[in-house]
Amino acid sequence: MKKIINQPNAVVSELLAGMAKAYPELKHIENLEVISRKEKSKKVGIVSGGGSGHEPAHAGYVGKGMLDAAVAGNVFSSPSPDRIIKGIEEANSGEGVLLIIKNYSGDIMNFSMAKEMAEMDDIRVESVIVKDDVAVPDSTYSTGRRGIAGTVFVHKIAGAKAESGACLEEVKAAAEKAIANIRSMGMAMSACILPAVGKPGFELCENEIEIGMGIHGEPGVERTSIKTAAETADILLSKILADYDYSGSEVALLINGLGATPLMELYIVNNEAEKILSSKGIKIYKTFVGNYMTALEMSGCSITLMKLDKELKELLDAPCNTPALKI
Amino acid sequence: MKKIINQPNAVVSELLAGMAKAYPELKHIENLEVISRKEKSKKVGIVSGGGSGHEPAHAGYVGKGMLDAAVAGNVFSSPSPDRIIKGIEEANSGEGVLLIIKNYSGDIMNFSMAKEMAEMDDIRVESVIVKDDVAVPDSTYSTGRRGIAGTVFVHKIAGAKAESGACLEEVKAAAEKAIANIRSMGMAMSACILPAVGKPGFELCENEIEIGMGIHGEPGVERTSIKTAAETADILLSKILADYDYSGSEVALLINGLGATPLMELYIVNNEAEKILSSKGIKIYKTFVGNYMTALEMSGCSITLMKLDKELKELLDAPCNTPALKI
Repeated sequence: MKKIINQPNAVVSELLAGMAKAYPELKHIENLEVISRKEKSKKVGIVSGGGSGHEPAHAGYVGKGMLDAAVAGNVFSSPSPDRIIKGIEEANSGEGVLLIIKNYSGDIMNFSMAKEMAEMDDIRVESVIVKDDVAVPDSTYSTGRRGIAGTVFVHKIAGAKAESGACLEEVKAAAEKAIANIRSMGMAMSACILPAVGKPGFELCENEIEIGMGIHGEPGVERTSIKTAAETADILLSKILADYDYSGSEVALLINGLGATPLMELYIVNNEAEKILSSKGIKIYKTFVGNYMTALEMSGCSITLMKLDKELKELLDAPCNTPALKI
Repeated sequence: MKKIINQPNAVVSELLAGMAKAYPELKHIENLEVISRKEKSKKVGIVSGGGSGHEPAHAGYVGKGMLDAAVAGNVFSSPSPDRIIKGIEEANSGEGVLLIIKNYSGDIMNFSMAKEMAEMDDIRVESVIVKDDVAVPDSTYSTGRRGIAGTVFVHKIAGAKAESGACLEEVKAAAEKAIANIRSMGMAMSACILPAVGKPGFELCENEIEIGMGIHGEPGVERTSIKTAAETADILLSKILADYDYSGSEVALLINGLGATPLMELYIVNNEAEKILSSKGIKIYKTFVGNYMTALEMSGCSITLMKLDKELKELLDAPCNTPALKI
């Protein structure tokens, strides 16, 4: 296993410690593995999190205009409720807290338990569930669609709404509106290795890719031969566009790398995605290209679209200042 | 070869086209493969460039406060003089142009020819050469030390100085000061594949890494067994600190990923680097962690230090707005 780590079971605490050292505006709560903003303001708090191994998600989105706290589980494992409660407490300024949860059974269970326990402590908590991945109707770790890279758009929209001074119900409504308008679809070209396991969870042959693979290596829809960038963009966008009507609308476009795919290739995919969307009369309002939600050293990419109205455009354009996204 | 591309010989033009689509403030000059700022201002122009395959370098640093134009060669090949001349013309507002060149023989030759030809057209051009890599005294493609990730700091310092309204000589002096205070050292864990070649240029065994490998796969100083993050940080920093006296000073620290190494591991290396530097009384003023100067899908990392004085701190902190770095 070629990884630059120390102890496999210490990767989460060490990565978060290294992150807090790089960004002095962030605070690492050790053992509970929460990253939160040092500077607090009176507003609705936004909390997200989930298993580690998706860096920069989720801690990379903590900062002004996005999350107030991110809660990290072990690699590809949901954070326990006590960690999530700490995240909620860190994010709470008395105006209530919104939890942004990716649709995995472990996350749903643990975030829900933490929500109930926080409510018993008189903290108002609401939650939204992101299920943007159109690849499969149910999956290994999820009932219903999986939450993947589109989650970053939900962080942005909810974070901007909260920063504007909106109340908890309004922030939740903005997050729900974003979720309703987001669809994603991905493909993988190689597996990733969990530090504590030491070998890949599956193998893809030299010339083989998997369409619709999840960000934990969950099965997708098809194993097939390697495709060109044009074919890849077409396959991913076709599935997205068949699922939701983006025709005639303005969209935010995210070309997300899974970890080991060079930026060169993501830009080439973007070049193709733009051609396809333009040919269909879909106007790209803003484009994001990079490693926003990864799967350790998996190679491959996903495409995400978010249909925009006036409110979503304003919230997308609002300033944010986090390690992984600055606007 | 598992790459999401179309034609191997079209990767550079397609990646730059995809980039310009993602960042409407940038302009892609087709065929000449120059990325430049659409909005010009009266100031010293800053141009860099080199072979492609190091994305986000160099085009990702074009924007306010850094480069005015970046010139791309083919993958791992120097751009031809006609391309560089176009970059100079794009960057020139009548105040002269500074070329930031990484120390590779092809780059030196082509940038020098372009400089001479631009001067014949009455454009004032100065150049600086970055040779921050302490690994080896000479290398496959360089006489003298290679230029690697520290080049990004030179872009930042020179760009900020130019944005402040300084004259060409002052901008060059700031860049030279940065160069004199920057040292880098890297290690690689896997090879990369040139799109036009289709197979790795060398192989590393399952448990083998190479200390001091260059960003084109040039030989380093030692092939050895896989190390922990603590050992890796120690090996790289020891070589840097033995080469230049950083004791008692404030530094900018860059933990750079070579392309396929997950951000998780870079943060863990940062955690270790901070411990080592702190133990030696070296104060970290600002930290950068991410894929700043890559080698396609090579895995591995490099560490860069820049010793700071008051002027360099101010220039480092000055705002910049580019695809790959925003301050």
